[in-house]
Amino acid sequence: MPTGGGRLEPRRAEGIPADLPHFTVMRITVLAGGVGAARYLRGLKQAAPEAEITVVGNTGDDITLFGLRVCPDLDTVMYTLGGGINEDQGWGREGETHRVRAELAAYGASPDWFTLGDRDFATHILRSQLLAAGQPLSAVTEVLCRRWQPGVRLLPMSDDPVETHVTLAGPGGREIHFQEWWVRLHAATPAARISASGAERARPAPGVLAAISDADVVVFPPSNPVVSIGTILAVPGIRAAVAAKTVVGVSPIIGGAPVRGMADACLTAIGVETSAAAVAAHYGPELIDGWLVDDQDKAVTDDPALAGIAVRALPLLMRDLPATTAIARAALDLAQELG
Amino acid sequence: MPTGGGRLEPRRAEGIPADLPHFTVMRITVLAGGVGAARYLRGLKQAAPEAEITVVGNTGDDITLFGLRVCPDLDTVMYTLGGGINEDQGWGREGETHRVRAELAAYGASPDWFTLGDRDFATHILRSQLLAAGQPLSAVTEVLCRRWQPGVRLLPMSDDPVETHVTLAGPGGREIHFQEWWVRLHAATPAARISASGAERARPAPGVLAAISDADVVVFPPSNPVVSIGTILAVPGIRAAVAAKTVVGVSPIIGGAPVRGMADACLTAIGVETSAAAVAAHYGPELIDGWLVDDQDKAVTDDPALAGIAVRALPLLMRDLPATTAIARAALDLAQELG
Repeated sequence: MPTGGGRLEPRRAEGIPADLPHFTVMRITVLAGGVGAARYLRGLKQAAPEAEITVVGNTGDDITLFGLRVCPDLDTVMYTLGGGINEDQGWGREGETHRVRAELAAYGASPDWFTLGDRDFATHILRSQLLAAGQPLSAVTEVLCRRWQPGVRLLPMSDDPVETHVTLAGPGGREIHFQEWWVRLHAATPAARISASGAERARPAPGVLAAISDADVVVFPPSNPVVSIGTILAVPGIRAAVAAKTVVGVSPIIGGAPVRGMADACLTAIGVETSAAAVAAHYGPELIDGWLVDDQDKAVTDDPALAGIAVRALPLLMRDLPATTAIARAALDLAQELG
Repeated sequence: MPTGGGRLEPRRAEGIPADLPHFTVMRITVLAGGVGAARYLRGLKQAAPEAEITVVGNTGDDITLFGLRVCPDLDTVMYTLGGGINEDQGWGREGETHRVRAELAAYGASPDWFTLGDRDFATHILRSQLLAAGQPLSAVTEVLCRRWQPGVRLLPMSDDPVETHVTLAGPGGREIHFQEWWVRLHAATPAARISASGAERARPAPGVLAAISDADVVVFPPSNPVVSIGTILAVPGIRAAVAAKTVVGVSPIIGGAPVRGMADACLTAIGVETSAAAVAAHYGPELIDGWLVDDQDKAVTDDPALAGIAVRALPLLMRDLPATTAIARAALDLAQELG
């Protein structure tokens, strides 16, 4: 929530006459996880084709596999907006094959539970090469995006290592990498604790704080509140920068269940109910100003626990691009109303 | 040439009764380049199925591409003997595809002149992972060979970095990696100098000197005398260890031309004529004891310049496995005769 209370005033593009209001440039900054955020961003680009969109991507899910650095959330956004995504599964490359992986398995190399396709491997090989040469992840991401032209500025939340860890429930519960819990264990083993290891020492990547401060609106797309948006907010400085802005969130929970993924397992681990209202209350009015819920959660709009948060109900399933564009537009409209 | 002058006496395998002479174990150590050596080794395994064969592989051709360590000669031997080679081209994997490479090219990653297939990439990914974890190349090669079971002990000549460099002829000639000259320039630009950069500081890999010292015979297969066998011999200690043994070489030159590859360009660079006799003289009687040449080079057998080297002529084209086995057998017979 902005402390200044100023009205949302999109900047005018340089050199554009003042009497052409539709040429104003709106700055939108989105904190993004993977599939849900990527699909939402596709709608946002349609809803605000002339906006400058900056995406701050979660890197807590990043993992080193076979010595190669894999950034699932950054890549999902990059591939989706760049036209290279596997539309059916929502992650990975279209037309993918798995020959490298089969060979690694033939060598007995582990782990065998994380699927990487051949085309996808090339991204990780190049990223690892550039990282090893001393380039920070933000610079490497820029290099990769030169090919994909996602139409947004994609920034990792931090160039410093932050790793989401999950402490398994039960006596002597092991602390494992998020991906091992999510992919290998399908989040079926309850988590006692989810932590962003290294976050306290991480600095926001170059451009992240400025992109938030300069934004006309900050959007939380329907990403995982714990391991995607929560991890980004755990990087020192980001939460405060976001809290100072007009923030509109899109509920990732519809009718008491995650639209996609296993966010319920993550919410349970941090003691938050899996409901649109509970997630909004978890963020709280000091962080978010507006909250979009699905029509079936319409009752939430009058929930006294959400005082200070403007809640709007609409169809929230991103079933196709027009539906997604409508959701993105509703977030911008609500921001305009609140700004 | 052995200084002791002792007769070649294959060791008896432990626990085998003395009256079963065909169960004796012969120890053969081969200094190997790539394709020619790999094919020769296939014949050698047929010719001496019970021999303990150690292969000391050239690593001067090794190159780091896209951050991954590629060892062309070691891999060619491993794939050929392990049944994974592309028989037509003599290097790389059979049934190969090139999707990773196409993706790297789409990113504009360089170089684009070195072909790596998808299956082959897996080998380099795993090798690089293990090297980055601190394992020496010899240990990594052992791990890779566990899958391929080449039926020989494959050792890199050294765990230390040695890189064959080529100084291009002409004023201000650049010094480039051997692979750039060989693969990108097709060795068409004359070389003023070929050097094994780093060789003077390299140590033989664990097991290399012992494998040479313990060998009943050391064989030079029809590999490049300059950039394959020459590079191995440049590692301090190896030349002296080899010189102390019975050594039989197989000419890589038939009728004034290399059987395969561009050895003539390498020989020219070091001032050696491209002929079976000149290569034998280049090694010299202090290093080799026997030399096999093709029937069309039969005149060499009486060349006074090769005094001290027993030269035998036979069909030397490795056109199929029986022909190759006959050549391998001839080398062992000559060693037996000389030992």
